Amino acid sequence: MTGILPSYVRDAWWTPDASAKASATEVRDASTGEVVARVSTEGLDLGAVLEHARTVGQRSLGELTFHQRAVLLKQMALALTERKAELYEVSARTGATKRDSWVDIDGGIGVLFTYSSKGRRELPNAKVVVDGPVEPLSKDGSFIGRHVYTRLPGVAVQINAFNFPVWGSLEKFAPAFLAGVPTVVKPATPTGYLAEAFVRILVESGLLPAGSLQLVSGSVPDLFDHLRVGDLVAFTGSASTAERLRAHDSVQTGGVRFTSETDSINASVLGTDAVPGTPEFDAYVAQLVVEMTSKAGQKCTAIRRAIVPAASVDALVDAVRARLAAKVVVGDPRSEGVTMGPLASIAQRDEVLRQVRRLQEAGGELVIGSTDAPEGVDADGAFVAPMLLSFTDATADAVHEVEAFGPVASVIAYDTIDQAVDLVARGGGSLVTSVATHDPDVAVALASGIAAMNGRLLFLDRDDARTSTGHGSPVPHLVHGGPGRAGGGEELGGIRAVFHHMQRTAVQGSPAMLTALTGVWHSGAAARPYAESGDVHPFRKSLAELRIGDQVASPSRTVTLEDIETFANFTGDTFYAHMDEAAAAANPFFPGRVAHGYLLVSWAAGLFVDAAPGPVLANSGLENLRFITPVSPGDEIRVELTAKQITPRETDEYGEVRWDAVLKNQRDELVATYDVLTLVAKEQAGDAAGGAPAVVDAGAQPQPA
Amino acid sequence: MTGILPSYVRDAWWTPDASAKASATEVRDASTGEVVARVSTEGLDLGAVLEHARTVGQRSLGELTFHQRAVLLKQMALALTERKAELYEVSARTGATKRDSWVDIDGGIGVLFTYSSKGRRELPNAKVVVDGPVEPLSKDGSFIGRHVYTRLPGVAVQINAFNFPVWGSLEKFAPAFLAGVPTVVKPATPTGYLAEAFVRILVESGLLPAGSLQLVSGSVPDLFDHLRVGDLVAFTGSASTAERLRAHDSVQTGGVRFTSETDSINASVLGTDAVPGTPEFDAYVAQLVVEMTSKAGQKCTAIRRAIVPAASVDALVDAVRARLAAKVVVGDPRSEGVTMGPLASIAQRDEVLRQVRRLQEAGGELVIGSTDAPEGVDADGAFVAPMLLSFTDATADAVHEVEAFGPVASVIAYDTIDQAVDLVARGGGSLVTSVATHDPDVAVALASGIAAMNGRLLFLDRDDARTSTGHGSPVPHLVHGGPGRAGGGEELGGIRAVFHHMQRTAVQGSPAMLTALTGVWHSGAAARPYAESGDVHPFRKSLAELRIGDQVASPSRTVTLEDIETFANFTGDTFYAHMDEAAAAANPFFPGRVAHGYLLVSWAAGLFVDAAPGPVLANSGLENLRFITPVSPGDEIRVELTAKQITPRETDEYGEVRWDAVLKNQRDELVATYDVLTLVAKEQAGDAAGGAPAVVDAGAQPQPA
Repeated sequence: MTGILPSYVRDAWWTPDASAKASATEVRDASTGEVVARVSTEGLDLGAVLEHARTVGQRSLGELTFHQRAVLLKQMALALTERKAELYEVSARTGATKRDSWVDIDGGIGVLFTYSSKGRRELPNAKVVVDGPVEPLSKDGSFIGRHVYTRLPGVAVQINAFNFPVWGSLEKFAPAFLAGVPTVVKPATPTGYLAEAFVRILVESGLLPAGSLQLVSGSVPDLFDHLRVGDLVAFTGSASTAERLRAHDSVQTGGVRFTSETDSINASVLGTDAVPGTPEFDAYVAQLVVEMTSKAGQKCTAIRRAIVPAASVDALVDAVRARLAAKVVVGDPRSEGVTMGPLASIAQRDEVLRQVRRLQEAGGELVIGSTDAPEGVDADGAFVAPMLLSFTDATADAVHEVEAFGPVASVIAYDTIDQAVDLVARGGGSLVTSVATHDPDVAVALASGIAAMNGRLLFLDRDDARTSTGHGSPVPHLVHGGPGRAGGGEELGGIRAVFHHMQRTAVQGSPAMLTALTGVWHSGAAARPYAESGDVHPFRKSLAELRIGDQVASPSRTVTLEDIETFANFTGDTFYAHMDEAAAAANPFFPGRVAHGYLLVSWAAGLFVDAAPGPVLANSGLENLRFITPVSPGDEIRVELTAKQITPRETDEYGEVRWDAVLKNQRDELVATYDVLTLVAKEQAGDAAGGAPAVVDAGAQPQPA
Repeated sequence: MTGILPSYVRDAWWTPDASAKASATEVRDASTGEVVARVSTEGLDLGAVLEHARTVGQRSLGELTFHQRAVLLKQMALALTERKAELYEVSARTGATKRDSWVDIDGGIGVLFTYSSKGRRELPNAKVVVDGPVEPLSKDGSFIGRHVYTRLPGVAVQINAFNFPVWGSLEKFAPAFLAGVPTVVKPATPTGYLAEAFVRILVESGLLPAGSLQLVSGSVPDLFDHLRVGDLVAFTGSASTAERLRAHDSVQTGGVRFTSETDSINASVLGTDAVPGTPEFDAYVAQLVVEMTSKAGQKCTAIRRAIVPAASVDALVDAVRARLAAKVVVGDPRSEGVTMGPLASIAQRDEVLRQVRRLQEAGGELVIGSTDAPEGVDADGAFVAPMLLSFTDATADAVHEVEAFGPVASVIAYDTIDQAVDLVARGGGSLVTSVATHDPDVAVALASGIAAMNGRLLFLDRDDARTSTGHGSPVPHLVHGGPGRAGGGEELGGIRAVFHHMQRTAVQGSPAMLTALTGVWHSGAAARPYAESGDVHPFRKSLAELRIGDQVASPSRTVTLEDIETFANFTGDTFYAHMDEAAAAANPFFPGRVAHGYLLVSWAAGLFVDAAPGPVLANSGLENLRFITPVSPGDEIRVELTAKQITPRETDEYGEVRWDAVLKNQRDELVATYDVLTLVAKEQAGDAAGGAPAVVDAGAQPQPA
């Protein structure tokens, strides 16, 4: 175990020559100081690593659709789940308690599950995604525009912080993989051995397409020199390192995308209504103690500033003190009863104590805890006690600028909401601010002032205190990142993070050309009415047989006043526009009595349906219905139903077909337009009788930062 | 006219002291060399200008909703239209022909119209926009997440290029204004007098909210020192200037957003199928000549590289030569018959000739035109002739890197599609690449290779050659900008550009809190069923009276087999799942015969409707319908219809109400969920009988770059 930690590059494990061992960096157990591993990249050709991703990785991922990649993500999640006991054991060496490890390991696995699920539900089973609606660019419809996302042609370099070696890697890897962009992950040295452990499980699972994931265990001094346009870097770590990396020529002029997620001086605001004795006060205290002590406060999202009404400061400090005493036991996480482990390393401990001293020198009074080592712990371990400082001057620069990246927070007081808004903003941009309030007016007043200075806002009250995922926990569904000091980037946020790995391109051309380029039928492109071409009805075609552009062009049907009345009486929808000629005519939109919109779409179904059992299994929904021209008694309607998008499911015997539906009247005016969604079997015959969709969603699992 | 050009700052016109005149920069007529204006910002306090925007401008724009700002944009467009003859006259002095001026002036006005229209159709009449769907974060629904966009709290600094003084300003101003972010515009010195002219019209129109638009005529040496987090800079110009600005501390570490749109070495590919004699070949030639000569080639989007099958190079050069001879007359744009004006300045002319010499030295052979001044033009004017170079070595670096920002393009040859893809990519990222092909396979093969290297792709063929807006013309509906060399930014793209001026923030909390924060009702928040509360039916409420959360909770209605058969026979929808018990039971989704989805939503309307004339005018549509649990004979259904979002129109007597519709069965299972869209009068009584919506859309007007 104390050899040199391998890298996984060019689809093989790699370690430097034995001669590198002398100069390799030692990595130690956070609680005991024992050497766990040595780290070196001496002799590693980073240019070749990147080029492997750009060639082999791009090729292997490019052969897969979004859904196929999504299925692999789920299989990876299952492979990691099966062997997670190994990861927990390694994780304890980093100073993580069981709960910390759960957040890191199960949280990371949860990201894979969520991206697998979202990828299949929210992306097409294709390689290109359209973005937004068609934009008509000519009057006759012969020239239109649309946006498409295609993957970046390069490599995603992911540089992670030491605090969440598993989650921090997987939350970057999952969206890159789903986008089809190969990853080179560079973990932080102090905990890189845990990243190596999970990469090993993935490699041994055989699930990784060639070149899709590479791991560099150790420093990467010339990495940026090898980057070029089409590559992107996602960095998590200190603001100062981000600054140095962002200044590199590859980013400044070379066209390399760079996003960063840096530690920020996050705030938690106790609302003016949340006085001691309210459920919000209690929830605020509980959350603050969790944020101070979980992962020993080593979270980019942890609360550093408790912004509290002046009248509640003393009560808050007392309540935090009492809760810390009741709940928190510092020690080796492998020992019984311990609830807070050491920091990740002695260097990290010394750095935290240095920052606490800076806060003290700037006016912070240590009202809870001390900078002395906690009692009864190993002197070789990186232990510190939870500490709360209080600032008399809420506007002291240090409290808004200095981060002690450990179990340390500061309390500052405010009188008015405007002051609270100003104090939050003094952080210069944060990953997250939480607010404890049950008063919507307080919430709205705070949010309108602070939203633009935060990547995430959490509102805590009696209604969600038990179910809240917590101030410090990004979830894969929501963006993680924030403006200014927080790095200015965005990660996660569901499919948004996939798009960060893709280029949005406007595409202009004829409907036929846009149909070919997107795989989605565009109105104006050639359609094939089945009756004219002697083909079978499109509902008689399986997914294997159906082609976009296949069409039902129905005969016309005349709407009578009797039909309208029959429908009104049957449904109970006797709205006056259908029943009362004078009142209908007085309505600004109707010439007189008109047919129900629901009558029209119901009839349209009657006009386009093929009734006998066949590959079309069900109508699952309808989208974007707009009623355009009213239909009066005596008018005729007909429908054109055209196969628009075909989405076979990877793990079911059927898929979704989206049909473009257009209703027209006898004057060829548009009556209504909408999309019909159906489920259609992949093959003809009885094979289609598969089970219900086996969609896995890990749901709302707490996630770290 | 030869005084110092004023700036418009802090809501007043400003010029330097007379003493500045000596050191002011002279600006000359492009055709005659006459001095048109002098430019200086000596003594201007830029810090105060920015602070005025952040205080007064933010406040005045913050009082308006998106729709109110959109209405103002339309009024500004009308004010400029009314006085556009003045602008055309000034524009001629910059060297612009009438057609060039049309692109700049009418194109710029068109951007205002489009943003006015899109703002009202695609944004809520509110100050906050939600982004994406609700994300459930707890099993019981008490904790949910969503994304909101709120405007940036600072100032939008817009630094423009000299080539399109009106369009270039307005395409940045419109989205910033719509977002609610005040603008400081800094035009390029050689043509800043035209920007001053349009700003003067806007100021005199009285339409500008205080602090919403300021104009700095002249250099801004210390501008970036005054910027801070919450501000953003949108730059158009040379890659080298972009590089210098981006390197400033305010951007690198200060959290200022910086986007750039820089000249790029755009390409136009002649497809392998588009041989001489095809309509695509002719369209390609015509487009290339337009791009070389329109605005005398001074466009960031102009074609610099004609990438042509080797066999067609000679034919292409001949065709371009013939068309240039037939169509292009160089001269003072105020003279009869002139179709191409001078460059913007002598300095610009000299720079273009310098770059042409670099291309020649790198192997480019001048096959059309010469570097000598055209005959018969004023020697003091900045005239050059159109020039086409040909490179034997298609991979020569210069042809992919050197930009002669004038009527200059180069031809290079390819043999295979892969080669063409490689040649396009050698530009290092472009604003636009066009492709002339009628073969979808050629289009798909090229697009899949080059999309990620371009901000825009245009496919030209016989179907759209007449209606195409052209290679060089960004349209406000589509993004403008590109990766790498093109600056890496995005402008326009409809509402996307509005969002670039806003911060996306994830918001977590209870449904009640998210309802308060977004102004949109969220499922799980309190609703007010009207019958229980003794209120009137929500359909009896005008927009002025209706509140989100107002609800109809209907009684139940039992579905019988007879109902299903009645509906099937009436509509013609006799799909087997409704009619044939055995076949329906064999379907994987149904327990046996089930009710039509359209029956259910039709009945739901009958259950929630209030039939008598009242404020609800029409059902305009339906969105996001999903059928969840099938309904069998004997099942009961009921509906909950809840006012979700209220959008009054600014220029009509009605607005849109979006209702959340939920159908449940007797076991409280979800049967279907959807949104119902209605048009509702603003006030009770006869006032509602206004006309149809007066939406103005400028449609697809050609736009410059």
